[in-house]
Amino acid sequence: MGENGDTEIIEHHVDEEMEKKRILRSHGSSFMESVTPSERDGHSSTQSSHRLLAYSDALISIIATVMILPVAHTKVQDNEELKESLQVLLTTKIAVYLMTFLIVTVAWAAHIRLFQVIERIDDCLALLNLACMMLITFLPYTFSLMATFPENILGILLFCACVMVLGFIQAVIVVYGFSRPFLLNDQIQVSENQVFYKHHILKVIMRVPIMCFFASIFSFIFFQISYVILAIVIFLPYISQSLKWCRSKAIGQVEETPDSMMFYTYHPNEPLSKERVEAFSDGVFAIVATLLILDICEDNVPDPVMVQKQYGGSLVAALQNYGPEYLAYFGSFATVALLWFVHHSLFLHVTRTTRFMGLLNTFSLAFVGGLPLAYQLTHEFPRNSRNELEAIQISCVIIFFAGVFQLAIWVAALFSERETLHPYVRYGGREHAFMLAKLALYPCVALGTFFLTCILSKFSASIFHLMEITVPFAFLLLRLLVRGGLALLRLIFCPDGPETRSALEEEEEEEARMPFNTMIT
Amino acid sequence: MGENGDTEIIEHHVDEEMEKKRILRSHGSSFMESVTPSERDGHSSTQSSHRLLAYSDALISIIATVMILPVAHTKVQDNEELKESLQVLLTTKIAVYLMTFLIVTVAWAAHIRLFQVIERIDDCLALLNLACMMLITFLPYTFSLMATFPENILGILLFCACVMVLGFIQAVIVVYGFSRPFLLNDQIQVSENQVFYKHHILKVIMRVPIMCFFASIFSFIFFQISYVILAIVIFLPYISQSLKWCRSKAIGQVEETPDSMMFYTYHPNEPLSKERVEAFSDGVFAIVATLLILDICEDNVPDPVMVQKQYGGSLVAALQNYGPEYLAYFGSFATVALLWFVHHSLFLHVTRTTRFMGLLNTFSLAFVGGLPLAYQLTHEFPRNSRNELEAIQISCVIIFFAGVFQLAIWVAALFSERETLHPYVRYGGREHAFMLAKLALYPCVALGTFFLTCILSKFSASIFHLMEITVPFAFLLLRLLVRGGLALLRLIFCPDGPETRSALEEEEEEEARMPFNTMIT
Repeated sequence: MGENGDTEIIEHHVDEEMEKKRILRSHGSSFMESVTPSERDGHSSTQSSHRLLAYSDALISIIATVMILPVAHTKVQDNEELKESLQVLLTTKIAVYLMTFLIVTVAWAAHIRLFQVIERIDDCLALLNLACMMLITFLPYTFSLMATFPENILGILLFCACVMVLGFIQAVIVVYGFSRPFLLNDQIQVSENQVFYKHHILKVIMRVPIMCFFASIFSFIFFQISYVILAIVIFLPYISQSLKWCRSKAIGQVEETPDSMMFYTYHPNEPLSKERVEAFSDGVFAIVATLLILDICEDNVPDPVMVQKQYGGSLVAALQNYGPEYLAYFGSFATVALLWFVHHSLFLHVTRTTRFMGLLNTFSLAFVGGLPLAYQLTHEFPRNSRNELEAIQISCVIIFFAGVFQLAIWVAALFSERETLHPYVRYGGREHAFMLAKLALYPCVALGTFFLTCILSKFSASIFHLMEITVPFAFLLLRLLVRGGLALLRLIFCPDGPETRSALEEEEEEEARMPFNTMIT
Repeated sequence: MGENGDTEIIEHHVDEEMEKKRILRSHGSSFMESVTPSERDGHSSTQSSHRLLAYSDALISIIATVMILPVAHTKVQDNEELKESLQVLLTTKIAVYLMTFLIVTVAWAAHIRLFQVIERIDDCLALLNLACMMLITFLPYTFSLMATFPENILGILLFCACVMVLGFIQAVIVVYGFSRPFLLNDQIQVSENQVFYKHHILKVIMRVPIMCFFASIFSFIFFQISYVILAIVIFLPYISQSLKWCRSKAIGQVEETPDSMMFYTYHPNEPLSKERVEAFSDGVFAIVATLLILDICEDNVPDPVMVQKQYGGSLVAALQNYGPEYLAYFGSFATVALLWFVHHSLFLHVTRTTRFMGLLNTFSLAFVGGLPLAYQLTHEFPRNSRNELEAIQISCVIIFFAGVFQLAIWVAALFSERETLHPYVRYGGREHAFMLAKLALYPCVALGTFFLTCILSKFSASIFHLMEITVPFAFLLLRLLVRGGLALLRLIFCPDGPETRSALEEEEEEEARMPFNTMIT
């Protein structure tokens, strides 16, 4: 079995190398094209789209996360219970945050799909794309208006206008791209029915703006319908997919979409660019990690006059007031950084991202975005108050969900592990147990802390801080811990001898026995 | 000459292709290593450092830019003159912003150099790097303290403590990296005097922490000296370089540093990773472009009660108050996006970045960071007031410098164009004139607007808005304009015939005459 597994791994390596080379070659050629005179009318010079997409990812991830700031800046008075003020928060601002996050990621997914078709750009496309970005960054504001004035149609109209203009620009990009076929994906470039592709893509792109057009018309008649239509827009891909599935079940497999159409099928297994999912996640993690220092730099530098008056000129005494806030900063930074670390470890072994994994990733990131808020709450209340306990428990819940959705990405990947995962982290792979431990650490710790604070509510703050301090060290020592745990399990369940071992342990053992020089060759 | 130039271009292409392939192969091998069992003691698994560096770039660029927020949020009263309030701004907050930007970019350059030596990472290095990031993101706060309480030594002590811990972690990273040579740069990996490299690198890294140690000791005795030492720390590379230059002039060329030492020579021509310069710039442009929408979403959603009372429930009337702020948002977004576009066009043709180009890029980015502030000021004052005029002129100055430093990057690159630039944008290259026009557009427009507002101070706002609207279209039509301009120049200066044309025009003409199919092959 070991022999068999090894050949398979090697084969997979070869496949990956080929794949890598193919990608590199296409990059290389796009680079070549960026410098060879591949222009037809002397009006444009072709470039690789890599950096444009990285910049777009950065912009979109910042915009998606930024709406947590109005939530975080809502002042919670200590004399009122957290629950009451939470209701105010929950109704509008958190709803705005989550809706913004969802709609922005929908726009982002559309952007990915568009630039999977158009792989090279020129100056004109770059400028059009920047116009798109400007409209996308304006979307959160229209949501704020909708949430604050739900009965006024101005918010809906503004939102629909933005989306319609966005759709129009995207359509222009598609038409422009198809008029210069050397900008297109190689697969489409060589295909014979380009016109068919063009119409199909335009049809898919124009779907959302047309629905928004109807939403804006309905808003004059009966504005509640508009909200329903907008909700449909967000879940359109999933609805259309399930409708298609029902139809195929009812009347059998109707049509097989051509191979290069897979970017526009809305199938949950449709590939998303792994590179861009990583770039987007990096952007969210980076802005979330720095949100608190942003506030600290602005608000927590004491006023010199105040220091002179209240503390007799002692800066240390004045700064001691802000102690909890520094703790909140380091705590939230460490948590976000470690969640990024887990995400990074996971995606290192992911070979291909599907739409469904992207969706789970979005959910995870939405919770990550809530972390600074939770940490800030944790340190805003006096010790042992009821509010403090609730704030700590909310933090635990947020960490738990952020971690669980990361775990869910892996589980979703395991269901089609041949396409999506590296052999090492598949069932029975060498790193399988280690990856599981890495992904499960945060959810388990958060859950444990949550229940501990329920039981020992007096020591909730100490437990929480202890958790903050121990988790980074747990990550450092995780590999040793996993090895120890596996050895322990082996001792307990099969103390007889090596013949009853499971395949997983056998492989691990084998790897340990193998001398180093054979590993290198 | 044309023939000669062509061969040269082709050779250069081949070189680049080889270079590209070499990079790709090393990437490929690092990817292979991330999945082959290249670990020596089963304690760590090697990974490509690409994503870790991208995340670090995002974090550092956000932190570098974020200190503009306290400046932007300083309320300028309209009854006082802008000049007076500007003095308050200038003395502390802008100084803090610029110092933070400089020190953070110094830390970033050190980070680049470190990870040019250590090219592959494992879990342990990733966690150590995240600890570094946490300390770097805390630096701006210590600067705020220093600026607010210049005579209190607490700020200095905090800063020095951060830098010393940073240096210690970096030293640990170096020692860890050299104890596992498969993590190192290939060049060092195969070299025979690794121990010498290790000591040299450690010596360079520990220089800054040791100076900070002295600064913290001096702060107890005579704190002004500490500031001098800290200033030396920032300019240390340039000072040491000029000292070395003086010595070499005095006693002749003393020593030739080994080839792979070039990452730690502090020579102005030392290569900086072009990829990372781009990633850092993207981060700064992205956060700057979104800073204003951040404020708008938080502050510019009117209160429902206020709307009911003051405007009789008319949301449109209430929003009209905020009109200028939307304009400021779109104006600053467009300017930042177009400056990004110019930067992107420039770096598309840069093949190698030197330290000096990186420094000019930093200056350009520091001015870009000031843009949102300038635009916000522009729209905060009543029409035709003296303050408005000054705000508009400050905006023009900031745009001018941001653009001029971009132009300076190109000029600096032209001085060693063989190594740093693509043949197309070198002197006499096909895209030379076009690139010059792209880079010169913003400085020229800003300068023109500045002088126009001086003369026609009554129409300053209209002139400024007109500039905002026309510049994007100018970029769209730039290629046509350049062609027209060149044709015009040709008509004026050499109307006789084709025999007196300059080489540049000749080449351009030749390209235009070449049929399309020969270009493809």
